[in-house]
Order: sequence, then structure tokens, then C-alpha cells
Amino acid sequence: MSLNGNGHASHGNGNGNGLTATGNDYPVPTARAEWIVKRKEEAARTGDTNMSQMHFARKGLITEEMAYIAKLEKLSPEFIRDEVAIGRMIIPANINHPELEPMAIGVGSLCKINANIGNSALTSNVDEELRKLHTAVHYGADTVMDLSTGGDIPMIREQILRHSPVPIGTVPLYEALNRVKRLEDLNIDVYLEVIEEQAKQGVDYFTIHAGVLVEYIPLVAKRITGIVSRGGAIMAQWMTHHHKQNFLYENFDRITEIMAKYDVSYSLGDGLRPGCLADASDEAQFAELKTLGELTRRAWKSDVQVMIEGPGHIPMDQIKLQVDKEVELCDGAPFYVLGPLVTDIAPGYDHITSAIGAAMIGWHGAAMLCYVTPKEHLGLPNEKDVKDGIIAYKIAAHAADVARHRPGARDRDDAISHARYTFDWDKQFALSLDPETARSMHDETLPDDYYKEAAFCSMCGPKFCSMNWSSKVDKFNESEFGLKKPDLTQIVTEQMALRG
Amino acid sequence: MSLNGNGHASHGNGNGNGLTATGNDYPVPTARAEWIVKRKEEAARTGDTNMSQMHFARKGLITEEMAYIAKLEKLSPEFIRDEVAIGRMIIPANINHPELEPMAIGVGSLCKINANIGNSALTSNVDEELRKLHTAVHYGADTVMDLSTGGDIPMIREQILRHSPVPIGTVPLYEALNRVKRLEDLNIDVYLEVIEEQAKQGVDYFTIHAGVLVEYIPLVAKRITGIVSRGGAIMAQWMTHHHKQNFLYENFDRITEIMAKYDVSYSLGDGLRPGCLADASDEAQFAELKTLGELTRRAWKSDVQVMIEGPGHIPMDQIKLQVDKEVELCDGAPFYVLGPLVTDIAPGYDHITSAIGAAMIGWHGAAMLCYVTPKEHLGLPNEKDVKDGIIAYKIAAHAADVARHRPGARDRDDAISHARYTFDWDKQFALSLDPETARSMHDETLPDDYYKEAAFCSMCGPKFCSMNWSSKVDKFNESEFGLKKPDLTQIVTEQMALRG
Ligand code: SF4
Ligand code: SF4
Repeated sequence: MSLNGNGHASHGNGNGNGLTATGNDYPVPTARAEWIVKRKEEAARTGDTNMSQMHFARKGLITEEMAYIAKLEKLSPEFIRDEVAIGRMIIPANINHPELEPMAIGVGSLCKINANIGNSALTSNVDEELRKLHTAVHYGADTVMDLSTGGDIPMIREQILRHSPVPIGTVPLYEALNRVKRLEDLNIDVYLEVIEEQAKQGVDYFTIHAGVLVEYIPLVAKRITGIVSRGGAIMAQWMTHHHKQNFLYENFDRITEIMAKYDVSYSLGDGLRPGCLADASDEAQFAELKTLGELTRRAWKSDVQVMIEGPGHIPMDQIKLQVDKEVELCDGAPFYVLGPLVTDIAPGYDHITSAIGAAMIGWHGAAMLCYVTPKEHLGLPNEKDVKDGIIAYKIAAHAADVARHRPGARDRDDAISHARYTFDWDKQFALSLDPETARSMHDETLPDDYYKEAAFCSMCGPKFCSMNWSSKVDKFNESEFGLKKPDLTQIVTEQMALRG
Repeated sequence: MSLNGNGHASHGNGNGNGLTATGNDYPVPTARAEWIVKRKEEAARTGDTNMSQMHFARKGLITEEMAYIAKLEKLSPEFIRDEVAIGRMIIPANINHPELEPMAIGVGSLCKINANIGNSALTSNVDEELRKLHTAVHYGADTVMDLSTGGDIPMIREQILRHSPVPIGTVPLYEALNRVKRLEDLNIDVYLEVIEEQAKQGVDYFTIHAGVLVEYIPLVAKRITGIVSRGGAIMAQWMTHHHKQNFLYENFDRITEIMAKYDVSYSLGDGLRPGCLADASDEAQFAELKTLGELTRRAWKSDVQVMIEGPGHIPMDQIKLQVDKEVELCDGAPFYVLGPLVTDIAPGYDHITSAIGAAMIGWHGAAMLCYVTPKEHLGLPNEKDVKDGIIAYKIAAHAADVARHRPGARDRDDAISHARYTFDWDKQFALSLDPETARSMHDETLPDDYYKEAAFCSMCGPKFCSMNWSSKVDKFNESEFGLKKPDLTQIVTEQMALRG
């Protein structure tokens, strides 16, 4: 299966099996290379070097990316343009990432999911990272972050970018720290050097922890888990060492200039996100969020795209508050949240503790959900963990789309339910997020082909299969009252076609 | 590890490892046998044969069971009594189940979880069912339902009852159907015979589908998945065959008489619960719920305890509505819900799709969450599926307790978070829901004992461990501002003691 786009156009449209083609009316991947060439020529002619989608949207233009996304999302191109123009939607699409199949992140489009991959100094290599990328995209990741912190970081990133049809995000601070060796030697020059290099390579969005201000540091003293964001902790340690303000905050406009040139989107990092339930929604968290709002407006002045990173660990009763605060303080910039975990007591199962929070926050309006794998807090995820994380988050994002009543969001549920009720086992498997797993669970007890049309399974057995009895009740309703079951043929056919 | 109570007193108090003793001040299991003997003698003397906890509560008495539960739940005995008296809490505790360690189900106490076990005609045997019971109780099931439909049902049930410290529920209709062979031969006499036998054996609660009325049958015609409750489908088929009203509804008071004698609690079955998102909150579902409310009030007239079963498959935006309706129509009788699944598209992962709904509905006030295993819709769960289902539901119930701000509910989260932040890996594992899994995931990359005190793990590695950097920031906050971290010693010590 190839990852570089051909036959792949569906990770953004709710398909669990990212590599299945959705149709021929989508541009082949080379198309984006052509759009970019044209755009660069135009920039050379006019001297306008701002290449961001927001810049074009604000000039009233509908880019090819916007048109492409409009088709995928079944929305009008004008709507996409207007949402991007006001900053409520972003299209992370570096002009040096021609392999990209454009996608959008915003409350007006389907809820997206991100998968973190990347090695640490202790484990993993480039082949394994490429396998994780493949797994992530195959099961439906909409974007992927390369969080590598060890080994040859630029080489791993280059490989990931050149093989990725989805936007790639990074945290440039990691490479900067590796370059200077000692944390206290970090400085804006090496940072700008790193982001320019990464931007040239084609990274689509950067997590930048510019909102952790020196005056917020005392606010974390009362926390149980202090600062749990790597970037946040690094910047805090730098500030306490130098007794100086965050150099990312101080030099924000210089960073923005580079972002504009390559159209890299900001993912404003939540360096002070809570790392446990006790620390949720505290003064430190919301102080930083307010600063992220200020930075958002500054980036928008230069037509640079922004999304805002969010928690973390949040009890269920505070989840809506998190979205409300973000919308209020950050003027509706897309909210990109990690989990949140709704309890701290289940290491080994944090894909589940966090899928609960993710589904709820997606329903309340978060635009993208960053997955958490079962290995969270315990070690670097492997390929199986990546898969488990992705499936949990496809569930969360889809449940959010259904609960928000996005048009057509429930079609796949209806189709699979119909297949289930009519004992069409093969269709039930095909329409599921993970057909192989569904099939193998069924086949564990009833492997024969014969049972693929059986009006029961091993759960209740033939005599106690409720759906079997229920179909007899349907016959009664039809003969007695002339009442017919709804006809779902069209929805099932459409949904089966989407699954290839 | 023994299942019959000795050393087991903690499944009801939020401990993931059900078989760990919580202390010596709880009665040993034989105690309940003595309470019951005394109570039976009293009944013989007075001629008052109603043995239900509700009956005693309404007479103003605090039973030994109530006192026991008050300690477990850290609530006053008077509160337990008053909640039982008005029907907002039940204590499922058959007088012929002396092995039981009493527990309560109600919005005023901790959120509980139920595990379904039991064979089908196609698979499983008594040894496997006992292993499932053990696994369920070990990981924290608060009640267990034996849904066996094949083989020697009474023998399997006897084994389960005699080994179970938690309340056991059944659906007597299954055994009744097996007895008459042909569905149309079902009748109230065989049904009463079955429930009297099961009540004598010691079953603590019965699911009874008395609310599926003949006039509701046409309402399911417009559904995608018709009737998905086994009991509901059987009763509907019986009614359509005979053109008669539900014989369980017609003979409800005769059933109630038997319930009162042995103190079996009603779990009024939701025969018309939705089996897919499209069918949620429809006319059929709420028509039946209204009838369940009527039956609740009828049972309460005889001082018989009642809980109400609920969905099913429900999109997130309708979950609160489900609780509101139940409280309104059933006068606050405890709500015992299956899931609900918040999407239909993930067979193989329905422990996750449903844990999302379960956590939310628990937060909104459901009293007990019936687990769903990964095998749902695909086959009979095995021991591993039981464990996966239980863990997902311990997460959901605990998250609900935290979100409802039940006193002390967050202590375990705080303790584990503190252990995490201080790199006390052994404590982090010990305080988690599944210590073995957490430990083995950590040890996958860093198995050496040395790493059990390491200030990092393989996720970020030593140079990028945020909590490691954060502890340096703490030192700065202390030296610069005199700000100290909160002292969690007592909470950690208490929580560790609870984990044995
Ligand atoms: S036997 Fe039970 S689980 Fe299997 S198809 Fe029938 S109703 Fe569904
Ligand atoms: S290395 Fe990362 S995941 Fe591991 S303990 Fe440190 S902060 Fe937590």
C-alpha cells in the first residue's frame, strides 16, 4: 500500500481506512506541486511573499486547497474561504509539502484527529517511525506530529514528510535543544535557524510555547504535577535560569515572518496544561490561555494561521468550560486538544480515559483531537499502541460529529446498523473502523463461511438471538398494520462505496 | 485467591482490585448468615413475610446491611435507610445469598458497574463461567449478571451464587423459555415457577420485561434495528403470536409477591431500548419507560425494591435527556444503564464506544453502568473480554464519581498523580486500576529495577522528561518565592493502604 497520496484521499472524510480512494474527482497528488509553482511565480512577480492560506482568503481568493477541501467536506468553497479568513478554520499546508492532500481544521468542518509519532533518545529508528506513520494514516489520522527528540532528527523528519499525505507538525524546540546541548544555551537565533530549516523542509505546523510567561511560573507551585508539557517545562527552566522573559514571546513577530513565507501554521502550545485532574482549569492554565489569545491576534495581523493547544487532564464537569474559555479568550481560533483524560488512575488504558474526554470536547466544539496511546505516562508507543490510539480517537471524533449533527455524520452508523440487523456480517465488518478485528472476533467462535449469513452469533445463539425474533415481529407489523421498515439501500450503498 | 468474601470487602468502594481487604472492621461473610437467621425467626413470630430492605427501611429500621454499606460508602446509616425507603437507592440482597457482601445502588452512593457473564447454547461451560466471575470481581465488578441460556442453567447459577460476594442478577425468562421449548408455550405459571426457584437459590435481582406492552409493538416498525433486547424480543414475539397483552405486565403483582418474600429486587427491563443511534429516544423507548414508572410505583406499594434498565445506543447529545426522562417518569428509582454506545461503527471496540456514554450518563446520575465488552455484537465474551470490559467501566464509573464531586472520589487520582510526579514508579503501578499491565508496559523498554526510581521513562527520555525539568522549576519557586508544593503524604498513604 502506498502512502504518498495515490489512491489516498479519504483520511479527512471520516473513513477509518485512510488509504481507500473515495473517487476520481479529486486531484492526484502531483497537482499540489503545480499549484505551488504557480503561486510562487505570482509572488515573485508581485513581491507579496506571504503564502498563507489565510492571506489568500483575506484577499477574497479561493485557493485550490480550499476547493479541494470543500469537496471532501461537502461544504461550499466560499464557506471554507470565509472561515479561513476570520481564523476559525486553518489549512495547514506548507508550500514545500507538495505530497500533501489538503485538509482543514475548524469547528465548521469534521472533527479531526492527530497522531504523535517520533522517537526518543532511548528507542526507535527511522523505519519504525515510517511504519508508525503508515499505521496512523491507514487507520485514519488526519495529521501527524513528529515529536522525535533523539538521533538524526532532520533525517527522520525528511523521510516522514516525503511519505506523508497528511499535514506534519513538529515542536522545533526539541531540535533547538539538541543543537545547543545545554538548556541554558537556548536562544532565539538557534531557534529561528531551526524553524527556517524545518519550514523549508515542508513542516505544516509548529507547536510553539510562546505563552508561558515568566510571571506565570509561581502559579504552578501549588500544582501536584507542575509543568507536564515538555516545551513548557524547557521554557520555564530557561526563564528561571536566566531570570528573563520567554524568548519566543519576545520574538514572536520574527517567528511569524518565517511562518508567513512558507505558510506554516501556528499551533500555540499550552506549556502550562494540567497534568492531573487536581491541576485542571487553574490560574496558571487560564493565564497562559489569555496570552495565547493575544498572540493569536498578533499572528492574524500578519495573516498567519493559528490553532490553540489545550489540555491534558480534565474532569468531565469542566470540559465544556475549557471550550468556552478558549473560544472567548482566543477569538474562536481552532482548538486542538490532547485528550483530555477524565481520570488519572488508569495508566495502560489512557487511550480510553482520554477518548471519553476527547469525544466530549469534540462535541462541545474542539476542532482536532490529539490522540493518547495506551503507553502514555509509561513509555514510547510502538506500532500497536499507535493503532489502538487511532481507533479510540476515530471513535471519539466520529461520536462528536454525530452529536454535533454534522450533515451525513450518522450515515455510516445507520448503514452498519442495517447490515447488523439484516445479518449481513461481511458488510458489518466492511463498514467498521477496523474490519480485520471485527471479523476475527466473530470468527473466534464461528469461523465457517456458513455463519457469515447466519441469523445469530455465538453471543446469544440461534434460539436467543433478539434480532432474529425481532424480524418476526417486523413481519407481524407489516401484515397486521401495513408498517414497513425504513429503506436504507441508498445509504448502505453509498457507505460501502466509500469503503472501497 | 478466594472469591467467597474473606479478604474481600472492597469491590464497592472504588478499588480496582476487588479482592483486597479494606480493613478488619467489616464483618466476615458468615455474619450475613446470622443476620438472616435472626430476621427469619422474627418473620415467623410476627407473620410479616416481607423481607425486603425497603420494607425494613420504611419501618424506620437500619438493617445490618445498611450499616455495613454506610461504612463502605462513608455515608450515614440514616441516609442509606432514608434513600432505600423512598426508593432512590436499592440494596440487592436476597435472604438466601449469605455469601453476599452488601452493596447499594443509587445516585446517593458511588457509581457501580455490572458485568454480564453466562454461556450461550454454542459455547462455554461452568468452569469458564466461574473464571469469568473471578476475573470480574477481581477487577472490581460491583454486581454480576448470569445470562446463561444454554446447558444446565440452574447448576451454573448455583455455582456462581455460592462463589459470589457480589449481588447476582438473572433474566428468568431465559430459563422459562428453555423449559417450555417453544416460545409460544411461555406462560405465567412456568414463569412463576422459575422465579420462585431462582429466588430460593439466592438470586439478588431479576430483569423482568414487563413494560413491553402489545400496543407498543407497532412503534418499532420504523426502527433500523427493531427490538434488540432478548427479553423484549421474546415477549414481543409471544404477544404477536397470541394477540395478547404481556403476561408479565398482567401478572405483575403475583411476581411482586415472590420478590418481597426473598427480597429480590426488580431490574425492570428495557425491552424496547434502542439498538442503534437512529433508534435512540424514540416513541417506543419512552412509551415503555412510562410503563416502567407505573410498575415501579406498583412494586413500591408492596415495599419491593426497583431499579430501571436503560439504553443501549445513544448519541452524546441525548444522554442527559435519558437521565432526565428516567428520573421524571420513574420517580427517581436507580437507573441501571447498558453503555450507552455513542457510535455504532466500531464493533470490536464497543467497550470504548460505550465507556464514553457510560461515563457521561454516570456523571448525569445513572446509578449503575452495565459493561459492554469488545465482543459485543460479535460473539460471546471470553475471560480477556470480561477483563477489558471491567477496566473500561471502572474508568467510566470513577470518572463519573469525580465529575459529580463525590467526597474523596478524586483522592486516588491525586495520589497516583503525586506518585507519577515524584517518579515513584512502584506506587504509580500499585495505585492504578491494572497494576500488572501498567508495569509491563513500562518494563517493555526499561525493564531494569534501576529504572523504577529513574526520573524519566522511554517516552521522552532523560533529556526531555518534562516532570524532571519541572522539579527544577519547583526548586526555583521555593527558593525565590518561598512557595512549596502541596503535601500529599496522607492521601497517598491512605490510598496505598486501600490497595493492600
Ligand atoms: S446472537 Fe445476539 S449478539 Fe449475535 S446477532 Fe443475534 S442479537 Fe446480536
Ligand atoms: S519521560 Fe515523559 S512520559 Fe516519562 S515520566 Fe518523564 S514526562 Fe512522563
